[in-house]
Amino acid sequence: MPQSSTAAPAPLTLHPDRALPTDPRQRDVARQIYAETRSLPIISMHGHVEVEAFADNLPFADPAQLLVVPDHYVTRMLVSQGAAPESLGVPRVDGGPVETDSREIFRRFCAGWHLYRGTPSRYWLEHELVEVFGIDQVPSAATADTIFDTIAARLAEPDFRPRQLLDRFGIELIATTDAATSTLEHHARLAAEGLGDRVVPTFRPDAVVYLDRPTWRADIDELGTVSGIDTGHYAGYLAALRQRREAFVAAGALASDHGHLSADTTPLSDTVAAEIYARALEGAVEPAEVQAFAAHMLFQMAAMAAEDGLVMQIHPGVLRDHHDAVYQAHGQDKGFDIPVATEYTRALRPMLQAFGTHPGFRAILFTVDETVYSRELAPLAGAYPSLRLGAPWWFLDSPEGMRRFRETATETAGFWNTSGFVDDTRAYVSIPARHDLSRRIDAGFLSRLVTEHRLTHDEAVETAVVLAHTLPQTSYARRP
Amino acid sequence: MPQSSTAAPAPLTLHPDRALPTDPRQRDVARQIYAETRSLPIISMHGHVEVEAFADNLPFADPAQLLVVPDHYVTRMLVSQGAAPESLGVPRVDGGPVETDSREIFRRFCAGWHLYRGTPSRYWLEHELVEVFGIDQVPSAATADTIFDTIAARLAEPDFRPRQLLDRFGIELIATTDAATSTLEHHARLAAEGLGDRVVPTFRPDAVVYLDRPTWRADIDELGTVSGIDTGHYAGYLAALRQRREAFVAAGALASDHGHLSADTTPLSDTVAAEIYARALEGAVEPAEVQAFAAHMLFQMAAMAAEDGLVMQIHPGVLRDHHDAVYQAHGQDKGFDIPVATEYTRALRPMLQAFGTHPGFRAILFTVDETVYSRELAPLAGAYPSLRLGAPWWFLDSPEGMRRFRETATETAGFWNTSGFVDDTRAYVSIPARHDLSRRIDAGFLSRLVTEHRLTHDEAVETAVVLAHTLPQTSYARRP
Amino acid sequence: MPQSSTAAPAPLTLHPDRALPTDPRQRDVARQIYAETRSLPIISMHGHVEVEAFADNLPFADPAQLLVVPDHYVTRMLVSQGAAPESLGVPRVDGGPVETDSREIFRRFCAGWHLYRGTPSRYWLEHELVEVFGIDQVPSAATADTIFDTIAARLAEPDFRPRQLLDRFGIELIATTDAATSTLEHHARLAAEGLGDRVVPTFRPDAVVYLDRPTWRADIDELGTVSGIDTGHYAGYLAALRQRREAFVAAGALASDHGHLSADTTPLSDTVAAEIYARALEGAVEPAEVQAFAAHMLFQMAAMAAEDGLVMQIHPGVLRDHHDAVYQAHGQDKGFDIPVATEYTRALRPMLQAFGTHPGFRAILFTVDETVYSRELAPLAGAYPSLRLGAPWWFLDSPEGMRRFRETATETAGFWNTSGFVDDTRAYVSIPARHDLSRRIDAGFLSRLVTEHRLTHDEAVETAVVLAHTLPQTSYARRP
Repeated sequence: MPQSSTAAPAPLTLHPDRALPTDPRQRDVARQIYAETRSLPIISMHGHVEVEAFADNLPFADPAQLLVVPDHYVTRMLVSQGAAPESLGVPRVDGGPVETDSREIFRRFCAGWHLYRGTPSRYWLEHELVEVFGIDQVPSAATADTIFDTIAARLAEPDFRPRQLLDRFGIELIATTDAATSTLEHHARLAAEGLGDRVVPTFRPDAVVYLDRPTWRADIDELGTVSGIDTGHYAGYLAALRQRREAFVAAGALASDHGHLSADTTPLSDTVAAEIYARALEGAVEPAEVQAFAAHMLFQMAAMAAEDGLVMQIHPGVLRDHHDAVYQAHGQDKGFDIPVATEYTRALRPMLQAFGTHPGFRAILFTVDETVYSRELAPLAGAYPSLRLGAPWWFLDSPEGMRRFRETATETAGFWNTSGFVDDTRAYVSIPARHDLSRRIDAGFLSRLVTEHRLTHDEAVETAVVLAHTLPQTSYARRP
Repeated sequence: MPQSSTAAPAPLTLHPDRALPTDPRQRDVARQIYAETRSLPIISMHGHVEVEAFADNLPFADPAQLLVVPDHYVTRMLVSQGAAPESLGVPRVDGGPVETDSREIFRRFCAGWHLYRGTPSRYWLEHELVEVFGIDQVPSAATADTIFDTIAARLAEPDFRPRQLLDRFGIELIATTDAATSTLEHHARLAAEGLGDRVVPTFRPDAVVYLDRPTWRADIDELGTVSGIDTGHYAGYLAALRQRREAFVAAGALASDHGHLSADTTPLSDTVAAEIYARALEGAVEPAEVQAFAAHMLFQMAAMAAEDGLVMQIHPGVLRDHHDAVYQAHGQDKGFDIPVATEYTRALRPMLQAFGTHPGFRAILFTVDETVYSRELAPLAGAYPSLRLGAPWWFLDSPEGMRRFRETATETAGFWNTSGFVDDTRAYVSIPARHDLSRRIDAGFLSRLVTEHRLTHDEAVETAVVLAHTLPQTSYARRP
Repeated sequence: MPQSSTAAPAPLTLHPDRALPTDPRQRDVARQIYAETRSLPIISMHGHVEVEAFADNLPFADPAQLLVVPDHYVTRMLVSQGAAPESLGVPRVDGGPVETDSREIFRRFCAGWHLYRGTPSRYWLEHELVEVFGIDQVPSAATADTIFDTIAARLAEPDFRPRQLLDRFGIELIATTDAATSTLEHHARLAAEGLGDRVVPTFRPDAVVYLDRPTWRADIDELGTVSGIDTGHYAGYLAALRQRREAFVAAGALASDHGHLSADTTPLSDTVAAEIYARALEGAVEPAEVQAFAAHMLFQMAAMAAEDGLVMQIHPGVLRDHHDAVYQAHGQDKGFDIPVATEYTRALRPMLQAFGTHPGFRAILFTVDETVYSRELAPLAGAYPSLRLGAPWWFLDSPEGMRRFRETATETAGFWNTSGFVDDTRAYVSIPARHDLSRRIDAGFLSRLVTEHRLTHDEAVETAVVLAHTLPQTSYARRP
């Protein structure tokens, strides 16, 4: 693909009005709205940065290991155009050979820069290159080495360690994602070092509620060990989960996180649940039982949430590891997770019948199926006090995706039944770019309401602040 | 939520260009188009204002009872943010205590004014406050009492009675919705008093075709009584329905109205239908039979429509009363009706095979599942002469919803296979606001076709008039 | 409908900026982008112009037979407003009487001109009338005869024969669609006359893989005859298909074309497939077996494609011949083909597991269910190297449809995982209009990325050229 090298490269810059609307009157208004939110601190409650990054506070390895190898948004695009994952340094499960020359990996990434045109990755990466690393060259085969060296030099500076970046990025509060079996030792260390209120854990029990995970049996045993409760039977399993939730609450957790295939929340009877659990221990569980048990556990988690006040994040609808060979070679989260149509109205009904108006319960709903915004999620969030509609998620965390979200959800749910912007990234240095983009898109949406005389200027500014800061804060406040 | 009180309130005004596009050239064109439709009379063929309002012509009770308590668009938003329905005066089925101080209810509504930002309720309410009641204050806790008093004073004026508002609102024709069991006595009174051509009934048989409605047995008996035909068996039931349709036609009805869960129109054999009916009378009907019978009756209603010419309005896809506790406490239509994905292509096929090209048959299709506009409804309406695509309905009766409707339906269905704008409201004083908004959005859509040189200015103006007035009139004309 | 005659008709003209964005700054950029693509040659790899048109190179019959009768986009709109297909000259299967006066048919079409407002047919027809035929009158009852005469005169000119139009239209490469049973004799003639590289066949086996087609048995026999392989059993049937694919490759084919009801690609065992095939020969096949066999054959076609390199075009999701009576009277492709919701993530998985990363395999996916762009197709195309996402198809080949496609697919799939613009028409003279429109819409989309500072001007121009010419060429290049 010679495309990216044909034009004489202009310097890489960020336009101050990027991602704001084109119409001059609307842009003026959007600029004024954005000016009021751009410097607000970041609340990042649904991210997946590893807690070790903060606990150890080691420098990042190198530009490729930071920006390319672990970011499946980035690698999937190159793979989709024919690159082997190995050539991008994506580790093999069997420890087999992959590219280890980070400079070479970075060259391959830069040579494919044109492939990201029109994608949010391009937008975020540009922001990172310019704002975080001070790069002024457009990535290409010709500029790859220079850019690599510049970033590498920055990463060696003391100011670029994970904890220091919290300040640089204006992060007020960030949540990590932690398995139900986590001992939370890294969080204990952070707390001891005064960061306990700034870096908090999130309780993620997926690995122990999906009975067919290859690691399920080992995880259940570990759950027993870490909780000190016998998980050899269903009642102990439930008690152990409850105990872990309490430990997470004690460690500062505000939320739990649930990535199910479907949104089903139909509870089973205790007897049936216990039978399925027992069969799973024997390794004799049926696929339909796996799904039924996962749905049952979503209901159980809601029941516990109504007691302990952890905010429940639910993001269903992704068929993980669509390509077996990629999964077997490279493991999970390698860009081959593909959404499926997802039903919420009937699926969430058991949970909402039980806890939908419970003052101690809150669920935040995410989706990668945009069709449900106006049809199901906004009507549900616009009725049930326990529900808030999460930010555009994953593939939808993008300029057009965020715009469509506001256009399709707001009229039925209003603004206050949404969670405000919540990123979902393991790419730490992309966090400021993502929040900045969301503030620009929200400013653009609100500016149109103003120029169409559907909202006053003052209301729009106030709403923008609510979306950028107030709602992420209040949506994730533990319930009374 | 202090948001609505932080900014110094500007006076409440309506901008003459509200809801028109921002781009100056497009706005100029839209303004000219809108100028040609703004004063056209209103045809309101799918509303739910109670016929008693016109028959009795009593003054409205008070501002809260007019604008808040009966409007589930309004109450659901407050409920979604934690208000108890009782605190908003929403009556309890058991007659239990609810707030009876209308002034207090109105204060709660005004204090939550910010929650409506970006919703069509906000848009309609602003229009009503300014245009209908002459209010110039933004609702808030501080202004609630003044606004209440102003509206209350207006409601006491003779010009604000329901019949007088017909003239004030420019309503040429309005349909009420009447149960199949209605004696139509109020309509007879209206006819006797010269309003028979202006306020017409609509035949709505849902209560007697859904065999599992709690009131079904009582309604069936009443159907027998009012028709004078024994409904103790299926043949009599059909005959009674036919007789009532004739009575409705005689009373001026132009249409029937069908709110089914699914769009299924698969007919049963007479034998099977009669058996299910008999079992329903014994109280022994299965859920699957209930749905099958409802589908069968949709087909039967189409068959009768092809004979008597009543236009058939079909609006499926809403799971009613999603939260049992709210339903049991407060009854139907309390904001907890949630859409589900709805299939039309296969579901309507039996009906369309039988009557789709019948010159005496017309069906108008509504949906709250936007995904079917471009995929199913526009292709169907763009082929079958019997079909017209109804206006954006319910949650979609909104600026963005109406815009998306035109953008996704027009290219395949054209304009003439749509019904023009039809509101669906029980909030009488919102009718002018809703029609005005639709005319603005259509003007905006058409103006873009003009400025993108896809339509001439003259064509756009002519089309706008067709959408605002001609099509509602011709779509609901009884068939030959 | 008097609408189209009320206004004094302005001359029919094409605005040079038609279908470009309204905003002045965006339009300027779009104009510059479009200027770089407007004259690029056309690659038309998914059309349905009959090969005989090129082989025989006879003049077109008359304006109605060219523009109205065979174009179901055009006739369906008139039918939807009450015209009988017979009155438009649509032939009856039984040879029964239909209108034969082409002038009268053309009058009916012109009198209904207002019905096409807002549709792509209107846009294409205007382009054809002005650009191809030099008409300057707006079609109406009053102008029909003059327009008819002008077009008829043009059609009689030697420059208006099909082969001559290839040059006039700037068509570099066009594919016809040919049954698996085709002897390819017309293509042989074209090759002998030096057009073999410009007009190529496409292998379409639908008629022989759907076991319930009325003509299936006859087609199977013909497949045996033309291939010289006994199709009386499953192995011979597969071998015959393989042989035909080879013949198509030898004749210059680049692609196969598959119009299935569902996207299912689940393979059967050889034994089961052979059993179903044998039962089909006996006329004893079940509906579920028909679908299972079609899915199996999609998998088999992919397997053969991975060997012979034919690019596989898959466009599922249309329920054909929705109205039996129209089908029985007039046959297939009469405007009563209605889309259904279509699932891809699970349906394509078997094929993608097997061939999704195979260097010899490419599939191009089309849909008429827009909901899958962002949810399923863009994520799949953005991961699997074998997949490209085809252009907006059929009802979606329209200004708004193309715009939504770019807005919903680009952020996840990027540009390079799409096929560029591919038309799907049997209306030969509409081809330049369709490609021109797509270039305008892409210019408009790209211009917004530029004015929102998400893409540089140079990148936008380069991308536009890639979409208009490079990608159609490279996407349909036979694989190594």
